[in-house]
Amino acid sequence: MQLSIVKIGGNIIDDETRLAGFLDDFAAAPGKKILVHGGGKLATRVAEGLGIRQQLVDGRRITDAETLGVVTMVYAGAINKNIVAQLQARNCPAIGLTGADGNSILSHKRIHPTLDFGFVGDVDAVNDSLIGSLLHLDQVLVFAPLTHDKKGGLLNTNADTIAQELARALSRRFEVDLIYSFEKSGVLLDAQDESSVIPRINPEQYAALVAKNVIFAGMIPKLDNAFMALRSGVNNVMIGKAEQLPLLLTGESGTTISNE
Amino acid sequence: MQLSIVKIGGNIIDDETRLAGFLDDFAAAPGKKILVHGGGKLATRVAEGLGIRQQLVDGRRITDAETLGVVTMVYAGAINKNIVAQLQARNCPAIGLTGADGNSILSHKRIHPTLDFGFVGDVDAVNDSLIGSLLHLDQVLVFAPLTHDKKGGLLNTNADTIAQELARALSRRFEVDLIYSFEKSGVLLDAQDESSVIPRINPEQYAALVAKNVIFAGMIPKLDNAFMALRSGVNNVMIGKAEQLPLLLTGESGTTISNE
Repeated sequence: MQLSIVKIGGNIIDDETRLAGFLDDFAAAPGKKILVHGGGKLATRVAEGLGIRQQLVDGRRITDAETLGVVTMVYAGAINKNIVAQLQARNCPAIGLTGADGNSILSHKRIHPTLDFGFVGDVDAVNDSLIGSLLHLDQVLVFAPLTHDKKGGLLNTNADTIAQELARALSRRFEVDLIYSFEKSGVLLDAQDESSVIPRINPEQYAALVAKNVIFAGMIPKLDNAFMALRSGVNNVMIGKAEQLPLLLTGESGTTISNE
Repeated sequence: MQLSIVKIGGNIIDDETRLAGFLDDFAAAPGKKILVHGGGKLATRVAEGLGIRQQLVDGRRITDAETLGVVTMVYAGAINKNIVAQLQARNCPAIGLTGADGNSILSHKRIHPTLDFGFVGDVDAVNDSLIGSLLHLDQVLVFAPLTHDKKGGLLNTNADTIAQELARALSRRFEVDLIYSFEKSGVLLDAQDESSVIPRINPEQYAALVAKNVIFAGMIPKLDNAFMALRSGVNNVMIGKAEQLPLLLTGESGTTISNE
C-alpha cells in the first residue's frame, strides 16, 4: 500500500494563505498520508514575548528547558492543532501527534563531545506498528517536530529527520514516497536559475553530478540523506515547492530521487 | 468492556508532585482508560507574559482570539504532551488528543442571547467509533479541553463537559464509569466536614437529600449532571479526591452516584 510522507517547513507555516493553499492540495491528494511540519516564527515570537532568550552556541540554537516549554506549546499546540482543525474542515480526517503520542518516536538527548545542545533528541526507534494501525483507521497523521525519551521528557527534533525516520521505518509496511517541500523548485543545475530543475536523479547520475561539481553545496546533505532513505527501503524521495504538491507527488514537478 | 473516564482539574495539574502521584495511580489502574484534563494556572501566566488581558464579563471568562491561541498552546501543547510523556515513562501507552483530532468532538461556538463568550464550544457530537478504535489499539487517550467546529476553528470547552459527553457517547460501546476528581473527598453531608462523605447516592436518595436541604448548593449542578449521565447509559459516576484514585475507581472512596 502506498504512503506519502510530506514535510513542510516554517516558510509555509508562517504564511496563512500559502498554508491554506497547501492544505487544500494535501487534503485532496489520494492514498495514505503523513504530514510533518517544522517550526516557524511563532516560537521565536512567543519566546521573545515571555522574555526567554534564544541561546546560540557556534551559530547553533540551544534548546534550554524554557525554550523546550515554548516549542512544546507552539509546535504541538498552536501549529499542530491548527493544521488538524484545517484538515478536518477539508473533510480530511487527521490526528495530530508528537513522538510521545503512542510512543511513536523514541529518542535520546543528543550526545556531543563539546557542545550541549540541551533538550534536542536524536531518534532511536519509530513505532511503525502503532503508526500503521492509525493509518489503517483512515486517518492522516500530522507530526509536530518533538520526540520523547520514555523517561517523561520531550525533546526538540529536526522535522526533516522525523520525516526521514518515519519514511525508513514505515517502508517495512508501506510503499513510501518521501516528499520534502522547500523554497526552491527542486535540485537545480544552476542555483540562480529556478528553471534548471533536474527532474530525476539516480545514484549513478548523482555521482556524475558531484564529480562535475554542478550540485549546489547546500543541497549535498539533503541528497545524501535522500539516498540513505532509498537504501533503507523508501521508494522515491521528491524535493520541490510546496505550492506544486500535486505535481510533486506524481513526479511531474521538482526532483525525484530514485534508485532507478 | 469496562472503560474509566477520569477528569482532573487545574489544582492537580498545577502541582508537579501531586500530578506525578496521580499519574502513578492512573497508569497502574486496570482496563481501558481516558483522562480528561482541565487548564490550570499556566494559561494565565502565559497570557500575562504575552500581555494578553483576560476579559471577564459578568464574572465569566471570555475566550477572545488571543486567549484561544494561548489555551491552544497551553492545553494541547504544554499540559497534554507533558502528561502523555509522563504516562509513557510509566509504561502506559497514551495518545493525547483535542476534539479536532480524529474529529473526535465536534462543537459549535456558544450561542447566548446577551453575551458573546468568544471562542467557546458547546458539544454537538462525539466520534465514538474512532475513539473506540483507538482504545482497542490499547492506547490510553488523554483529552485536552478543546473541541472544533469542522470549519477550521478550535473552541475552548469545559473539561467537565468533555468528560461527560465522552462518557455518554462511549456508553454505547463500553461499560463506562465517569470519575470526577476535585478538591473534596466526595459529596459531603456537612460541607465543613471532610469525613461526612456520602458513599453512595441513587436517584431516590438524591431526591430525599435535596428535600432535606442537606446537599451543599455548589454540588447540585454536579449531581444533576451526574444523574443526566446515568440516564444516558453511563454505569456509575464517582466523585472524590484525585489522590484517592485507586479507591475511587472501585467505589471504596468518594461518592458513587448510581441508578441502583
